[in-house]
This record gives sequence, C-alpha cells and structure tokens, in this order.
Amino acid sequence: MEQEFSSALLENAVAALSRLPGVGRKTALRFAMHLLRRDAGEALTIADAIARLRTEIRYCPVCHNISDTDGICPTCASESRIRSTVCVVENVKDVMKIENTHQYRGLYHVLGGLISPIDGIGPDMLQIRSLVERVTAGGIDEVILATGATVDADTTNFYIFRQIQRSAPQVRVTQLARGVSVGNELEYTDEATLARSLATRTPFEI
Amino acid sequence: MEQEFSSALLENAVAALSRLPGVGRKTALRFAMHLLRRDAGEALTIADAIARLRTEIRYCPVCHNISDTDGICPTCASESRIRSTVCVVENVKDVMKIENTHQYRGLYHVLGGLISPIDGIGPDMLQIRSLVERVTAGGIDEVILATGATVDADTTNFYIFRQIQRSAPQVRVTQLARGVSVGNELEYTDEATLARSLATRTPFEI
Repeated sequence: MEQEFSSALLENAVAALSRLPGVGRKTALRFAMHLLRRDAGEALTIADAIARLRTEIRYCPVCHNISDTDGICPTCASESRIRSTVCVVENVKDVMKIENTHQYRGLYHVLGGLISPIDGIGPDMLQIRSLVERVTAGGIDEVILATGATVDADTTNFYIFRQIQRSAPQVRVTQLARGVSVGNELEYTDEATLARSLATRTPFEI
Repeated sequence: MEQEFSSALLENAVAALSRLPGVGRKTALRFAMHLLRRDAGEALTIADAIARLRTEIRYCPVCHNISDTDGICPTCASESRIRSTVCVVENVKDVMKIENTHQYRGLYHVLGGLISPIDGIGPDMLQIRSLVERVTAGGIDEVILATGATVDADTTNFYIFRQIQRSAPQVRVTQLARGVSVGNELEYTDEATLARSLATRTPFEI
C-alpha cells in the first residue's frame, strides 16, 4: 500500500532515497524522518558527501580503480609496489578486499565487471583490451586472475588467459587457489569445491 | 574489521551514509558503489532531495505537522476538514498513517514525542501546552488521543486528559479503541489485550 505524504519535500526525499539498493519506501521514510530529527548540518553533510562522491571521483587511466586525483592513481604511481605483478579484479570493492589482507604488494587492474552472455556483457564492455595492452607493453611478469569462482568468472578468466597467451606468451597467468575455506568444516564444504581441492592438493606444511 | 578505502571521497561518503539509521559501513559502501555505477544525475537528485528536505521543510505553527509552506499548513487551513475535532498523535508518521485510513476528516495536533520519565522527556518538551491553549481557545468539541498502547502513551494521554479537564471541561476527550487486531486469531492475542477487549466489548453488529 502506497503511503501518501502531505509534504512534497518529504515525498521527493523518500522517492530519491528509495532508489538506493535494498531500500524500499518504508526504509526511505525512516531515513527521511531521521534526517528531520537531526540538525541540518548532518543532512547537509550526507547530501554533500553523495554529490561529491559522484561528481569528483576519478578513475585511474591505467588500472581503472577509483581515485581522488586526476591522472594515474597513487597505487599505480607508487614506487614501493611490485610493478611486475598485476592483480586482475572484477570491481573496486575487490581491490579493497585484497588490500585489507595486507598480503599483496603488486599493482591492480579493475575490469569493471565480468563477461556474462546472459546479461549481455561482452569483453568489449570491460577493461580487457587495456589489460592486454598493458601486459603487452612489457615490464609485467605475472597476471593474477583474482575473481570469484563463478561461471562468469571462469569465462572471463579463460578469455583473458587466451588473449594474454596470444599477445604476451612470456607472461605467467595465475589464479586464486580454490579449496576448503579457512575455518570451515569438511561437512559443510560443497562437493565441487572438495573435488577441486583434492585434485589440487598441496604438500603438507607445518 | 574496518575496511580501508583508497579514496577519501569514498571514505567520506561511506562515513556519511552510515549515519543513517540501521546502516552500517557495509551497507553504506553498497549505497556508495551503487551511486558510482549510476549516472551523476541520480546521485545529485538524492543529494538535493536530502538537503532540501532538511533545510526547506517547515512546521505548522498550529498543528506542528511538517509542511512545505510557511505559516499554517494546508490541513489546518482547509475549509473541508471538520474543525471541531482534533486528533492528537505522537509524530508526523502517525498523521500519514491516519490519513491513509481515509476515515478521519478532522484536524491534527502533533506532540513531537511522548512523555517518558526514563528517557528524561517531560511535558514541557512536547507540544502539550500549545494543544491545551488551542483547545481552550474554543471551537473544539472533541480531542482524540490517537497514540499507541504503551506505558509512555498512557502517561501522556492521562496528563493531557487532566490538563484539558482543568482548562476546557466541556471538551470530550476520547482515545483509540483497544482490542483484538483485525485479522488476528484469538490464540495469538496477548492476555492484556484480550482482557481489555472483553471489558470494553461492544454490541454485535452485522
């Protein structure tokens, strides 16, 4: 049942807020009521942060990650990163996830999605050509395909692998290990993962 | 685990969005990523709606409901509403709820909360004095206390009832009927409600 608002300002705010993912009119109204209860500064801070996020953010022309500055991003420009390794990820969030492991010191390449015939997303809609050009240009020893373990990820990885093999066959292409999740009991590991982790078993380490 | 963002703009947006009620950093990041994926117009629409909601909204000096205009709100000014009945509600949302029933044609009075000794909210922090003045000024036959069925609501209702009794004893004070919810089975009705609905049973209607 659609709620009716006596205020057009409230109606606008609810309509706008309910465009956020997972937010319906009820939650949007809760957000709006919260903003009305707080002082104006809080609402303006949120409004300003949203507007600036979308209008001021830049994308690095090399790795296509988001950046606060024009031109090459701090990660791509950094002298302390290992410049011969490129980690290929689906999106900006994945870069954060990998950075938060503190295990990786190389560079990145953000595809901006995965090849998905069902959703009509082809290789040309992603940053694959720029990856191949970057790898072909030289100075890169290894490309790590750090995608999830889905059908679309497999398709995308295979496509990238073939492209790099053709243009820069000397470059090593690797992918994330797949297997039992750390902390998981075997009982709750699915059969496909179990089969794969058996086939790709590694020497025992203490 | 706190996520680290490479972008200060993203960090600001996530920090701002996570101030919304029920929104953590993870959801805020999902909102921010969504805004980055859509065109700039959508983000600016949301930002503008939030800013305008908080800065342009007005409160009616008579009923204290939100309004888009300065001065008396359209409901209070309307000639087609029954001006001798005032429905007292806790907040702006309650006005919408009652309007959506299409059962009420009188005026409103928004208290802006309920008396709550535990939360330190006394009668002076609510729009009770202005209600009593409004009722005392004349022209009002009935005051409907349309609050929930909580302890704070009971306290508030009793306080208002006593105040009106003292200042305008000719005014009828009523409250919402309490009883079995429409559509509810008796099995799931709590004992307090059941006891009350027994005590206040009404003539059978076809």
